[in-house]
Amino acid sequence: MSFRSGRHFLHVPGPTNVPDRVLRAMSRPTIDHRGPQFAELTGRLLTGLRDAFGNPDGDVIIYPASGSGGWEASISNTMRPGDRVLMFDQGFFAQGWRRTASAFGLEVDLVEHDWSLPVSADAVEQQLRYDNGAEPYKSLMIVHNETTTGVTTDIPAIRAALDAANHDALLMVDAVSSLGSMPLEQVEWGVDVIVCGSQKGLMLPPGLAFNSISPKALRAHDNASLPNAYWDWVAMRTQNQSGFFPYTPATNLLFGLEEALAMLFEEGLYAVFARHSRLAAATRAAVQAWGLRVFCSDPNAYSSSVTAVAVPGGVDADDLRAVILDNFDLSLGTGLGKLQGQVFRIGHLGDINDLMLAGVLSGIEMGLRLAGVEHQSGGVAAALEELASTAPTAPTAPSRPRADPQRIR
Amino acid sequence: MSFRSGRHFLHVPGPTNVPDRVLRAMSRPTIDHRGPQFAELTGRLLTGLRDAFGNPDGDVIIYPASGSGGWEASISNTMRPGDRVLMFDQGFFAQGWRRTASAFGLEVDLVEHDWSLPVSADAVEQQLRYDNGAEPYKSLMIVHNETTTGVTTDIPAIRAALDAANHDALLMVDAVSSLGSMPLEQVEWGVDVIVCGSQKGLMLPPGLAFNSISPKALRAHDNASLPNAYWDWVAMRTQNQSGFFPYTPATNLLFGLEEALAMLFEEGLYAVFARHSRLAAATRAAVQAWGLRVFCSDPNAYSSSVTAVAVPGGVDADDLRAVILDNFDLSLGTGLGKLQGQVFRIGHLGDINDLMLAGVLSGIEMGLRLAGVEHQSGGVAAALEELASTAPTAPTAPSRPRADPQRIR
Amino acid sequence: MSFRSGRHFLHVPGPTNVPDRVLRAMSRPTIDHRGPQFAELTGRLLTGLRDAFGNPDGDVIIYPASGSGGWEASISNTMRPGDRVLMFDQGFFAQGWRRTASAFGLEVDLVEHDWSLPVSADAVEQQLRYDNGAEPYKSLMIVHNETTTGVTTDIPAIRAALDAANHDALLMVDAVSSLGSMPLEQVEWGVDVIVCGSQKGLMLPPGLAFNSISPKALRAHDNASLPNAYWDWVAMRTQNQSGFFPYTPATNLLFGLEEALAMLFEEGLYAVFARHSRLAAATRAAVQAWGLRVFCSDPNAYSSSVTAVAVPGGVDADDLRAVILDNFDLSLGTGLGKLQGQVFRIGHLGDINDLMLAGVLSGIEMGLRLAGVEHQSGGVAAALEELASTAPTAPTAPSRPRADPQRIR
Amino acid sequence: MSFRSGRHFLHVPGPTNVPDRVLRAMSRPTIDHRGPQFAELTGRLLTGLRDAFGNPDGDVIIYPASGSGGWEASISNTMRPGDRVLMFDQGFFAQGWRRTASAFGLEVDLVEHDWSLPVSADAVEQQLRYDNGAEPYKSLMIVHNETTTGVTTDIPAIRAALDAANHDALLMVDAVSSLGSMPLEQVEWGVDVIVCGSQKGLMLPPGLAFNSISPKALRAHDNASLPNAYWDWVAMRTQNQSGFFPYTPATNLLFGLEEALAMLFEEGLYAVFARHSRLAAATRAAVQAWGLRVFCSDPNAYSSSVTAVAVPGGVDADDLRAVILDNFDLSLGTGLGKLQGQVFRIGHLGDINDLMLAGVLSGIEMGLRLAGVEHQSGGVAAALEELASTAPTAPTAPSRPRADPQRIR
Repeated sequence: MSFRSGRHFLHVPGPTNVPDRVLRAMSRPTIDHRGPQFAELTGRLLTGLRDAFGNPDGDVIIYPASGSGGWEASISNTMRPGDRVLMFDQGFFAQGWRRTASAFGLEVDLVEHDWSLPVSADAVEQQLRYDNGAEPYKSLMIVHNETTTGVTTDIPAIRAALDAANHDALLMVDAVSSLGSMPLEQVEWGVDVIVCGSQKGLMLPPGLAFNSISPKALRAHDNASLPNAYWDWVAMRTQNQSGFFPYTPATNLLFGLEEALAMLFEEGLYAVFARHSRLAAATRAAVQAWGLRVFCSDPNAYSSSVTAVAVPGGVDADDLRAVILDNFDLSLGTGLGKLQGQVFRIGHLGDINDLMLAGVLSGIEMGLRLAGVEHQSGGVAAALEELASTAPTAPTAPSRPRADPQRIR
Repeated sequence: MSFRSGRHFLHVPGPTNVPDRVLRAMSRPTIDHRGPQFAELTGRLLTGLRDAFGNPDGDVIIYPASGSGGWEASISNTMRPGDRVLMFDQGFFAQGWRRTASAFGLEVDLVEHDWSLPVSADAVEQQLRYDNGAEPYKSLMIVHNETTTGVTTDIPAIRAALDAANHDALLMVDAVSSLGSMPLEQVEWGVDVIVCGSQKGLMLPPGLAFNSISPKALRAHDNASLPNAYWDWVAMRTQNQSGFFPYTPATNLLFGLEEALAMLFEEGLYAVFARHSRLAAATRAAVQAWGLRVFCSDPNAYSSSVTAVAVPGGVDADDLRAVILDNFDLSLGTGLGKLQGQVFRIGHLGDINDLMLAGVLSGIEMGLRLAGVEHQSGGVAAALEELASTAPTAPTAPSRPRADPQRIR
Repeated sequence: MSFRSGRHFLHVPGPTNVPDRVLRAMSRPTIDHRGPQFAELTGRLLTGLRDAFGNPDGDVIIYPASGSGGWEASISNTMRPGDRVLMFDQGFFAQGWRRTASAFGLEVDLVEHDWSLPVSADAVEQQLRYDNGAEPYKSLMIVHNETTTGVTTDIPAIRAALDAANHDALLMVDAVSSLGSMPLEQVEWGVDVIVCGSQKGLMLPPGLAFNSISPKALRAHDNASLPNAYWDWVAMRTQNQSGFFPYTPATNLLFGLEEALAMLFEEGLYAVFARHSRLAAATRAAVQAWGLRVFCSDPNAYSSSVTAVAVPGGVDADDLRAVILDNFDLSLGTGLGKLQGQVFRIGHLGDINDLMLAGVLSGIEMGLRLAGVEHQSGGVAAALEELASTAPTAPTAPSRPRADPQRIR
Repeated sequence: MSFRSGRHFLHVPGPTNVPDRVLRAMSRPTIDHRGPQFAELTGRLLTGLRDAFGNPDGDVIIYPASGSGGWEASISNTMRPGDRVLMFDQGFFAQGWRRTASAFGLEVDLVEHDWSLPVSADAVEQQLRYDNGAEPYKSLMIVHNETTTGVTTDIPAIRAALDAANHDALLMVDAVSSLGSMPLEQVEWGVDVIVCGSQKGLMLPPGLAFNSISPKALRAHDNASLPNAYWDWVAMRTQNQSGFFPYTPATNLLFGLEEALAMLFEEGLYAVFARHSRLAAATRAAVQAWGLRVFCSDPNAYSSSVTAVAVPGGVDADDLRAVILDNFDLSLGTGLGKLQGQVFRIGHLGDINDLMLAGVLSGIEMGLRLAGVEHQSGGVAAALEELASTAPTAPTAPSRPRADPQRIR
């Protein structure tokens, strides 16, 4: 690749831009993971993470792993061979979690599902009521925000469906691309296991996975019987209580995690979510002005962290992405699985602001033109209209309800 | 100031954004400035700088100083008390250089001048021909690119005027905001002293000043008699020949300088200049679409590195800048000297690319609206039109002549 | 902890000091793990790793994980439930690998073993010849360099024992604290799986695990039937062939890995090993001069990367470590498992040189005095004697055989 | 130079090791030097510097310059052409300051002086009483800690001599290698101008110079008439009052300065001085045990920041330094001026601790041996004896008076 001046625009839906503050924190000299300084760090991290997950009195487990490792952890700690679990074909990442479950010998009922829609509470309730397996489902596994599609499922509604069906299954949620970008309240929402990774809303490089677990999930561990060593919650929890880990933790990523959590709390979690929501709205305004289609077909399910954009028939979205990368040094997400070539994905999550997004949308608008994709110009203008009318000092802003940045848990 | 997410947009016309590569280079451990490793570094730096200044066989002096120190160096090394020098009132920085000259006891003829225009060769020639001082001018001091105004003066034409007038004055040029952003060829253009700093086109933090000098300038040093110690060319030159400095150099900035020069040569100097020219054109397209006025009134003198924009009467440009900074975390340059409040300045130089500029112009367009400044929307759209039509793969691009990135001196 | 001036001395046997070059490389902006730039990086990394493992035509798998994850990978990719494996109780880490094997349902024969000695080829051969299980051992799992004890086992001799017994078991080796510090030649030595981590001889922070695998190991994967998803060699290998990964890799640690490999090859692998050997000898000279005991009781098995030092009866080694940490900001390794309180461990591996080691030994010598541990002074002097007599320009150096730093594989 | 593993030991008496914290602070993105965030930074820096110089209500001026620029500033702001000033030939840096004074047309009386001794109050008083110039001395210029020789002059005694002679000269002090390493109290000691740089006790890279000035010095500025532009105190002071600078300041070095001051105050200035004093004593213990000579011949004048060591006749100290650099990657200071080849200098100042010093002394002890310099071994042992007996938990420590780390000005 030839020389590129200026900053690369990294707007795949994760990894996201790592802020300078986090990169600097990560460059601190590595310390002894069995020393007193480390124990204090662990304490601060677990407190912060519990707050971020809305799991203030529960347990958060930190793994040196990619987010996919969090899937394996959620399964190997709670299940027995042959256990039945319920999933919906929400997208590429739901399928990935399914593959892990199958590899561990679970019997997975994967319900067919329109990728452009969220999982509905009705469908969940119906599936649970008419569950006719020999054994009831041990777990319902839902992706909160499908990174493939930009569709967000309403987790409190899913919880209500479980309750309405009076079903005892664990509620497990993949929040890899929602944590730190949109509301997530484990205790309030009644979630048993949340799976997450470091490289999205947490603004870190990839390399950390998380399980945030409820007391009920922990009880399930007692009866679980799958092979469970690296991911063992109990070994982690026991060692964590004195500030240590059963094996060498990823020290420098943990330095970065401390700084990233500090940034999220400095801004205020709900202010962070409001920022993401506002940038997502501006993104959709641009897409609609271009005359392209937001892949998510339910306006109540629009994701705040990623927007998948369908390209017109006959266009290869990856050709468009290549034109944009070559001309404007902007990386967008590819279409995954069956959407390959049909959508491109804009990551608007993490350490991002209005003018960075304006740069992204400008790159896309110019790319559409250079690639010869039929569209109307004016997308950037529409986005600026949205951003300006909701800017801090915009005269009309007060009429728009805003989240309380001072929320204290 | 409240928490700011995402990257700050620093677009004052210097200091410019320091690339990550340069920041990382600067964070290397400091080394002994009298050791063998340092001597090799010095050699590489001087070679690279001579190439950057177009002064391949001459001398470049590196000072631990701000660019203003370079003014003092240019004077104290060449002049005698009471020497007459010729300057034009080009802007705030021309005035600054004049103040230094006066502080050193020179007799400065500062010709009145319209800030919105470049210095014309005719005016120079006329002034030199009818020079009626007791002693002829010892030096003609010209600012190549006035950072105050965004007006570039044609140095080869000035040289020709000197020659036409058959005048022996040294030609001294302030290239603080042109080096590394637009063509500058010391030998070819017949310049005797070039003054520069590190924090503009060289993409470094402030802290280094430069004098690039001709043999004629060096001969002037022999007869000079102003106090001259810290800035002494000859002490520098002598020590530099073995790779050292007469006093402790700014080691870590020099590490950064090595990396910055490497980046300029990797991209190719004339490709760098073409990039700046293209971004400047897009900036002006936006300004004109907004219905605002580019302060520079001679299209042949538009600067590639900075555009000063005049705001409508009754508007305080600094209020606008504050609205833009508060809402969009974008720093623009203030109006300097008599232009305070009347213009704002857009720095589009250094480590910058299309989408960064699109972000900048988006911030201004939204800021104009929020601040209630009368304007037409569509500035960003006009800039994108300019950028897209000149992008690497733009179908119509070939008709546009492009600089040769492979230029070898 | 009160303020600490100067550099912390981190000399646990891993994580080791991360060189500035590696920290700087890790602080580069994260890139798209599905883009073309990433694919090129992957190619360079795998080539370098294959060379480092002495497995030029084989496969190296890189996991976002701690070294312990490499154990799980070695097992879950090759074994079936109930498979019998042979291990020796070499120390705390052999026991850890055993626990993972047991957790995966393997039947582990753990032979009792004196921790102060290496595993002998005779013991291996005898065990294999008189193997009277229903099924033959599927794997022999040996720790190359036990980080608990500072005892190195001769892997080529173990291979010879397998061959002599004409046994088909896979030879699996934990090289976590030997790779990059002492010779390791997978193909030449006939090893099937090597397990490694990033935070020792590779000079990286923790967070990467490795499996380097032979064709025979890969064939074992075909018949394996343990749950295998995150650690799946085949998914990795398939994606790696085009430069990608089946899930998000730990991008910034990979940036660091590229730099660390470059450093190892710049110095030359066998020069690195010679440096470690020399520093280890100096360390032992100090221990012996203090009148303390090197825990390893076989001089042929002394480790080049870590020295465990037995403290006199009645002394708690952890009290001594605390005195040293409090007074001199030096972190040493604790005694692990049954050695707790009885030994402390000196990590002399990774990015370390003579004067850093002299600092370490000085801290220990002063700590012994302050903690009131009975000893003779003169340990540092003995180490300096060893280092000076083997320094590059030492007059007597030629009589000492030295590894060839120019070795080309 | 061949590959070097581990950390370089930089122990010239400046530049000193820049702590990681400072390097990280310096790598923050550059900000607008005319914006509100910058103004706040300036305020914090000036407050901290006034405290560090013991000049709480006075003015400190920060220049983008090397320390030598501070000399030029001290002169050009206060003197008139032909002014008489008194200096002593204390060493290479006193001579440098003299050269600057002469270049500015001052009449310098440079009193011959034994470099191995401090300037005595008696000599000063005598010189001032029998001052028979046409005009009285305008200034007495003294180097507090001669970096050439490791000799510290007692400034309060010099002040007393000025007072005893009832002389009105300004007392100007070069504290380049004392500030931040040994006590310095401008107001309490009655100093009018202190000249300093960033790269010694302040633990920064080179690139900042300082003048800390008294009200009397500021009054002298009113009558001064030397050329004065870049170094102009009044322009600086005026702009600084609103948080700005008359020209672009060295932003990223200022970020580092903020962090370095924070570190000094966290440790406590007098704890910092006690640390330096203790390390200097250990260094001299080593030198004496080697049978070499500390160049400073007055034990009351030993420097806490640098020790110059005389080598035996017939030995070239630079040969020894080369052997040490080649074998042990340790940089020591060369002999300057007439001491070239006769001494080497050990910098034990800045961000340094016991084990770093132990490494340095080990490198010298081994280097003496390899270079064939006649000496006794045991220097390192003597230093460790000194360090251990004065360590925080040393049983005999209480009898040793210690500075109060809680000192509040």
